[in-house]
Amino acid sequence: MSNHGDATLPGHWGPPYLLYLGNPADDLAIKTARGVAYWRPEWCVGQYRHRDCKPTLGLPDISMAQAKAKGANTMMIGTANAGGMMAPEIIADTIAALDAGLNVVAGLHQKLRENPEIVAAARRNGRVLFDARDPAPGIPVGNGRPRAGRRLLTVGTDCSVGKMYTTLALERAMRQRGCAADFRATGQTGIFIAGSGVPIDAVVADFISGGAEWISPARSDDGWDLIEGQGSLFHPSYAGVSLGLLHGAQPDALVLCHEPTRRHMRGLPGYPVPELKRCLEANLVAARLTNPAVKAVGVALNTSSLSAPEALATCRQISDLLQLPCQDPVIMGVESIVDNLLACFAN
Amino acid sequence: MSNHGDATLPGHWGPPYLLYLGNPADDLAIKTARGVAYWRPEWCVGQYRHRDCKPTLGLPDISMAQAKAKGANTMMIGTANAGGMMAPEIIADTIAALDAGLNVVAGLHQKLRENPEIVAAARRNGRVLFDARDPAPGIPVGNGRPRAGRRLLTVGTDCSVGKMYTTLALERAMRQRGCAADFRATGQTGIFIAGSGVPIDAVVADFISGGAEWISPARSDDGWDLIEGQGSLFHPSYAGVSLGLLHGAQPDALVLCHEPTRRHMRGLPGYPVPELKRCLEANLVAARLTNPAVKAVGVALNTSSLSAPEALATCRQISDLLQLPCQDPVIMGVESIVDNLLACFAN
Repeated sequence: MSNHGDATLPGHWGPPYLLYLGNPADDLAIKTARGVAYWRPEWCVGQYRHRDCKPTLGLPDISMAQAKAKGANTMMIGTANAGGMMAPEIIADTIAALDAGLNVVAGLHQKLRENPEIVAAARRNGRVLFDARDPAPGIPVGNGRPRAGRRLLTVGTDCSVGKMYTTLALERAMRQRGCAADFRATGQTGIFIAGSGVPIDAVVADFISGGAEWISPARSDDGWDLIEGQGSLFHPSYAGVSLGLLHGAQPDALVLCHEPTRRHMRGLPGYPVPELKRCLEANLVAARLTNPAVKAVGVALNTSSLSAPEALATCRQISDLLQLPCQDPVIMGVESIVDNLLACFAN
Repeated sequence: MSNHGDATLPGHWGPPYLLYLGNPADDLAIKTARGVAYWRPEWCVGQYRHRDCKPTLGLPDISMAQAKAKGANTMMIGTANAGGMMAPEIIADTIAALDAGLNVVAGLHQKLRENPEIVAAARRNGRVLFDARDPAPGIPVGNGRPRAGRRLLTVGTDCSVGKMYTTLALERAMRQRGCAADFRATGQTGIFIAGSGVPIDAVVADFISGGAEWISPARSDDGWDLIEGQGSLFHPSYAGVSLGLLHGAQPDALVLCHEPTRRHMRGLPGYPVPELKRCLEANLVAARLTNPAVKAVGVALNTSSLSAPEALATCRQISDLLQLPCQDPVIMGVESIVDNLLACFAN
């Protein structure tokens, strides 16, 4: 794999991080920062907020200079907004961070490197800029050839139903059991957490499946690549990304992710969330094009809008319906899903 | 629609064209030039070939200066190669064309505007460069909202089975009957022929369905948008593009395109061409997400590898199998497909 965007290289972007929140519209706008703070708390020295910012990660509020003094290497712009554009205040704050001696990383569609003032400030301070939505150069067109190794992909009924959390929870649980298992990031938050990956929604359309092949190359150590899914085959805005990722991943195993209280597809009131059985079957049918032996091994629910008894009852009901283990990775863990995965691929 | 890439604007790229062949590897490498010469012969003043070039369009071989003297406005680089890169000789010839006073257009993944020598030559001569694979800025994310007007999309069992030819043949036949019908281009050759469009395989992955919505906006004149399909839901390299295009197009009508002698998916010996019935059904199922009323109205075959009696027999066989009119648009026209289309949407 290329070193592009590899946070583990010396002198490159990477932790420790100051998490920049600025002045976000709502709690959803800081989901990138929240993901990094949740999965890599040891990498986060503090958060930077404007005075009127209500959302918080529960980290100490510190200035850029304080962050630098506490050992931060990089300020991560952990906010997102519709369209991915940079507000003027984010540009000013980015320049201030560079002047304070921090590198800056962001995951917006609008790139840091496309703003001349930001580029000048980085150059003047000898700092690194990294756009997580900038795919590495040289990703090839997908070739569909069967490759060695085992791969699991999370797929969803909709966007934002917990595919990244589920995939990371599987990595943690499998490693705790001594399995070789590696999270493969396909979105900006995942890339910040993993330190590398492909922003699959930002590659040129012809290269979606190629990008998926590129992040999960052949492996021969009997371990698993756990590939972060994106979107949904049933989301009319993004299904092309989901299908290309499904084909390129050549998954042996699928885990279906779902938010049981979601009434309609994210952002599209006219589109109901697909029925679970139909959604899983459509993913299996499409996946068989590049891996005829693909199996569903579990269902992961985001039950954060349910009471504990409701969450348990819903998991049981869906488990009965699909004849698969069903858990909320954040509240219940993923042990029964891992049990089933390992049982299905025991040979 | 934006004026980006609109060949009908004064002082912009556009015909008359000198078609540049250079020194292509084989006949397939000049398919862009061949498409333009076939559909818009009145726009083509000649072809430019190197001495050792075997493929020909049957146009007069002329120099760049001769082309300019004959009224050519633009040299079109009508060759393609795997990966879409520019060979050194193409760079040199492009500069020579600019120095001869011609604008230059190309449809390669590697952009004219990314080569500093080419950009300098264009500036020095006051000439225009146009990269057909450069999507217009500002294409939005798809919104999936039902929109007015009627749309037909060509879909395929594979890449390069005649989707563009079929769509253009439908435009010609429908216009001859007095129907309002407009070809909507989604690939570089189609963009050169139509004078505008969206290179759907070159947009950022998140914007595939948005690009399809953008080129076929709501219309209220009772006419048809005829949208050029791309790839195939069954091609593991490009299916994401095909699905996003299918969702964004919201087609009322599908025409399935097929090459009956193709043994495996283009470039992928391990992947057989899908069975016609299964392929059509998969396209209809996926299309229903954004247009539940979608109907298949015909099948278009590329029978160029068959004898005339074989071609007729194959059309009859497939017509019986799918209960749809089946024709080779180039040899037989598309009248029976248009008959069925108009009968299906007669109200």
